[in-house]
Amino acid sequence: MKTISPLPLANVQLTDGLLERMQQLVKEEVLLYQWNALHDRVEGAAKSHCIENFRVAAGLAEGEYYGMVFQDSDLYKWLEAAAYCIEVFGAAAGELLAHAEEACDLIARAQHSDGYINTYYTIKEPGGRFTNLQQGHELYCAGHFFEAAVAYHQATGKREILDVACRFADYLAKVFGTGEGQMPGYPGHQVVELGLVKLYQVTGKEAYVKLAEYFIAQRGKQPLYFERERQQPEYKEIFDLPVIRTAVYSQSHVEPVQQTEAEGHAVRALYMYSAMADLAEISNDEPLRRACERLYHSVTQRRMYITGAVGSTEYGESFTGDFDLPNDTVYGESCASVALMMFAARMADLTGEGQYYDTVERAFFNRVLGGISQSGREFFYVGPLAVNPAACRENPGLAHVKPVRQRWFDVACCPTNIARTIMSISHYAFGMEQDTLYVHIPLACWIHASNLDMTVDTQYPYGNTLRIEVRKGQGIALRQSTLAPVKTLRVNGTPAPLVAEQGYLRLTGLRLGDVVEAEYDITPRYVVSHPKVVANVGKAAVMRGPLVYCAEQADNGEGIACLTLPRTPEFKEKETFAGQGTVLLVAQGLREVFSDEESLYQYELPQKAAAEITLIPYHLWANRGEGEMQVYLNVQ
Amino acid sequence: MKTISPLPLANVQLTDGLLERMQQLVKEEVLLYQWNALHDRVEGAAKSHCIENFRVAAGLAEGEYYGMVFQDSDLYKWLEAAAYCIEVFGAAAGELLAHAEEACDLIARAQHSDGYINTYYTIKEPGGRFTNLQQGHELYCAGHFFEAAVAYHQATGKREILDVACRFADYLAKVFGTGEGQMPGYPGHQVVELGLVKLYQVTGKEAYVKLAEYFIAQRGKQPLYFERERQQPEYKEIFDLPVIRTAVYSQSHVEPVQQTEAEGHAVRALYMYSAMADLAEISNDEPLRRACERLYHSVTQRRMYITGAVGSTEYGESFTGDFDLPNDTVYGESCASVALMMFAARMADLTGEGQYYDTVERAFFNRVLGGISQSGREFFYVGPLAVNPAACRENPGLAHVKPVRQRWFDVACCPTNIARTIMSISHYAFGMEQDTLYVHIPLACWIHASNLDMTVDTQYPYGNTLRIEVRKGQGIALRQSTLAPVKTLRVNGTPAPLVAEQGYLRLTGLRLGDVVEAEYDITPRYVVSHPKVVANVGKAAVMRGPLVYCAEQADNGEGIACLTLPRTPEFKEKETFAGQGTVLLVAQGLREVFSDEESLYQYELPQKAAAEITLIPYHLWANRGEGEMQVYLNVQ
Repeated sequence: MKTISPLPLANVQLTDGLLERMQQLVKEEVLLYQWNALHDRVEGAAKSHCIENFRVAAGLAEGEYYGMVFQDSDLYKWLEAAAYCIEVFGAAAGELLAHAEEACDLIARAQHSDGYINTYYTIKEPGGRFTNLQQGHELYCAGHFFEAAVAYHQATGKREILDVACRFADYLAKVFGTGEGQMPGYPGHQVVELGLVKLYQVTGKEAYVKLAEYFIAQRGKQPLYFERERQQPEYKEIFDLPVIRTAVYSQSHVEPVQQTEAEGHAVRALYMYSAMADLAEISNDEPLRRACERLYHSVTQRRMYITGAVGSTEYGESFTGDFDLPNDTVYGESCASVALMMFAARMADLTGEGQYYDTVERAFFNRVLGGISQSGREFFYVGPLAVNPAACRENPGLAHVKPVRQRWFDVACCPTNIARTIMSISHYAFGMEQDTLYVHIPLACWIHASNLDMTVDTQYPYGNTLRIEVRKGQGIALRQSTLAPVKTLRVNGTPAPLVAEQGYLRLTGLRLGDVVEAEYDITPRYVVSHPKVVANVGKAAVMRGPLVYCAEQADNGEGIACLTLPRTPEFKEKETFAGQGTVLLVAQGLREVFSDEESLYQYELPQKAAAEITLIPYHLWANRGEGEMQVYLNVQ
Repeated sequence: MKTISPLPLANVQLTDGLLERMQQLVKEEVLLYQWNALHDRVEGAAKSHCIENFRVAAGLAEGEYYGMVFQDSDLYKWLEAAAYCIEVFGAAAGELLAHAEEACDLIARAQHSDGYINTYYTIKEPGGRFTNLQQGHELYCAGHFFEAAVAYHQATGKREILDVACRFADYLAKVFGTGEGQMPGYPGHQVVELGLVKLYQVTGKEAYVKLAEYFIAQRGKQPLYFERERQQPEYKEIFDLPVIRTAVYSQSHVEPVQQTEAEGHAVRALYMYSAMADLAEISNDEPLRRACERLYHSVTQRRMYITGAVGSTEYGESFTGDFDLPNDTVYGESCASVALMMFAARMADLTGEGQYYDTVERAFFNRVLGGISQSGREFFYVGPLAVNPAACRENPGLAHVKPVRQRWFDVACCPTNIARTIMSISHYAFGMEQDTLYVHIPLACWIHASNLDMTVDTQYPYGNTLRIEVRKGQGIALRQSTLAPVKTLRVNGTPAPLVAEQGYLRLTGLRLGDVVEAEYDITPRYVVSHPKVVANVGKAAVMRGPLVYCAEQADNGEGIACLTLPRTPEFKEKETFAGQGTVLLVAQGLREVFSDEESLYQYELPQKAAAEITLIPYHLWANRGEGEMQVYLNVQ
């Protein structure tokens, strides 16, 4: 079924615009900063000890284990991001290459002779291997390692770390299964399935995809493995939180193919759905495909914030119910939106339908990019849509919501996840089918593959034009998005019809020197939520193309809840504080003015006075210190 | 300073109106139901075991302790409520008298020879007496016992249970203090101070008030007692929640006299402030009085819901910060509003200012009365101002919010607290100064004391007229409230001036046969919150006199968040489903109508269609099954 393949990162060189700048930031700042954080060299940041755990496990140092049971995964995701950076920038990646080599070497040295790698179970619980699959995160760490190993192999052509990964995967394939002497278990935190699929894709080794299939097929089978596991004498509790022991939390309550609603821990859920989509495609598994479609619908039509944030509650970092999308108590973890991008892109792969990239864009340009500061050294874990800094400090129900980005975290999954996503954005943005270029997300770049040589010029998502110059390649499939619909399309100045098939405007018969031009409709517009999202009734959000906007105290003064948008969305556009062509919006709206600024309760309705309302892109919020922020504002 | 004394309950016979009906309900249903609940005879209710604990402690039965460490207090508060009922109704209280006698007997039998009473430390931790003052609740239970014993003595004239209480208090006075061989501790959960003051008031024994003063004065002194206590080898943790171990949770972070903001566990805080007000009056302690005024201001002008609910977070059942008053995640425990009534009434006593009764009325007529169902057999612990039943089920951050009242609770402090407050409402409503009647809250009744004989006719809070016929007594001080201002006042038909002194309209020189008539302004009006209460900006609540109104799904259909109140508060009045002169309000407003009822995100602003909006008194909500409810609605 799949005919569109991703372009290798090395074949796409971003040349301009927001993402080119973000990739430069990742190369120049983010990955070096994170490397230092993993070495505990960042002052004022939460302690990581991640590298040191590997050094101890490898026998290069003496010491205790420190950190969460899944601390290893931080290095793996860093390595994956570094690999993409090396693939994109080549020699310009500079010292990152040496650091990545050091990371690979450390990982290899921490490997046991049977292939197993995990520093927690090597240092702290040497006898406990696989005794707590629900909470132990060994397979989770393995999954991130496999993804990193494949990325590093693809970036450098080197085989060493790939071989280390294969030895580990071979070992897992022996241990897990329903055969004689095997453990009928599966991961508490999914992701190993995705890593195994990638290992299969580069090695062609069927055992890896079979193991991934087994993990998905076995999950949720009665009697539940995690319940049996807890009865074993060698079982040791790792986490205290009761929700972790519920089956729904880890999506093991029902077999995945039977699942209908997005439930439980959002990152686990979305990694699993992504793996299900991979496997549905590889095995042409129709029931699994239908499950993916149901779950995609549940997420995106019932349980997703306008920013692409998912996971409405901090308790268990979980999905809650349909239309339960509180703006302030939201969790909306960065990693969950990364996982949503992965799921949506795989759904597009699986079905050939472009519409799924609307969700990729929504999550990426808002929640994921919003997870990192302009300096590249601070990160959000949680993604609120309304922030009142005083309440975040004083109300324990908002303790998880930080009004400004943090330097590092005790659970530091998000920073490296954001980095790997920015560095591999071209995997999402472009595809290739023989000599046709698929533009899922318009980014300025030079594309140079064996059948393709094209230059893409655009300032998207800020700019509304696209110009592609063809040097090699016969076709272009330009995605027709609902967030920023193509309103004009021209080939060498001649209008082309705006008829989309499977979500793409297809141009064929192109040749050297042809110029394709498109114009997107990114006029700012109001977006309202379904009436069951009770907090948003009477309010609207503003989107310009895929970008969600928000009001910040820095532009609008204190009391942004008092701002009221005009009934008609008319905005002036200016450059934001961040410069570089980023666009802010100014509306002539109203502000509720209270005659009494003291009393808690008062009998006079506030007057509505004219007020200029400034909105900035959500991904840029909280770059000017602490202040109020709201995505949804009252509307006249 | 204090010159206004409360009228004994026996001297005030409610004759008509909402409160007369509520007191009948308490007598006929509530107290018998609760007596059965304490005996575990209510099907489908949470297990109490409270009576059985006493039976085991008294040696009348064998068995284990069951329940929270403070389970005893449920019987004490029940006994206090029963005592008030007996005082109000006399022989008409029927079988309650025998039950109350049985309760007194059980308590007396559970007393140790040294005076100590506590079934948990008698049965379950016999060696642990006073080893964990922070969490053990022995002094909390003692306080509620003292209040009950005084009430029962006042109701019946009997001394037995009062003597039991005095023996316990004498024992406490020996144990606690800074003298040689004494423990320099104080209660984790305040209330014993209030009980000791009441014991002092009926016995005149200075030692009791001294002990109360000591508990307040010692609290918060460095080094903190609770921190030292935790270091002792015999210390045992009772509760797992970390917040309980913080000093601010139990208001022991600073000496009470220095405190400026309402912080920590709301019930503890307000019982303590009540005791501080008592002691400030008894000792004419000016710094303590100023502390009370500061704290009252902090609560009522910064941290109190419009319904008189307090405690913005479930985490630690606590106050949070200024203006942090979320409608949905609120805690707003019934007991906290009872405690707020106690504090406000004591502030009125202390200062002679009537204004404080505005808070008593607000808390009583809304949050406290709203805590009990029409049947008298179901209760709210938590007092939300916006309920979406689906979200309560599905979002763990709302797990504490119940869309319907419950039969009983594992922690069952609220039902008996509501009962004792309803039965003693005349203590709040009326006062006496020589031959002057103070009407703090207008209730229909016959008042017959040695210097007073008057009949009060009113349907307040639903009706807007008051008529007092004087048979004996020379003065009436009618409170001028801000919630329902007196707009006309007449003596024998002749208008009297509306000049309030200290919050009272004073009439003097009255004589037999005089008739005083007043008319209150209870025209429904909009109330808006301070703009920093962000969830309420653009919204208004409706109040009619002291009654807060709300919209329920039962009247308005699904989607009450879509209702929009008209700019001008014009309402038609009808009788509610509850009948009996209760008033609902109907406005011609608007409803947001969404063109697309499916999509989570949509680009068209909803249209506003004409819609009738029905509002019912908040205290009557959730009497017609589960449904949406909101106090604040969008306003045009």
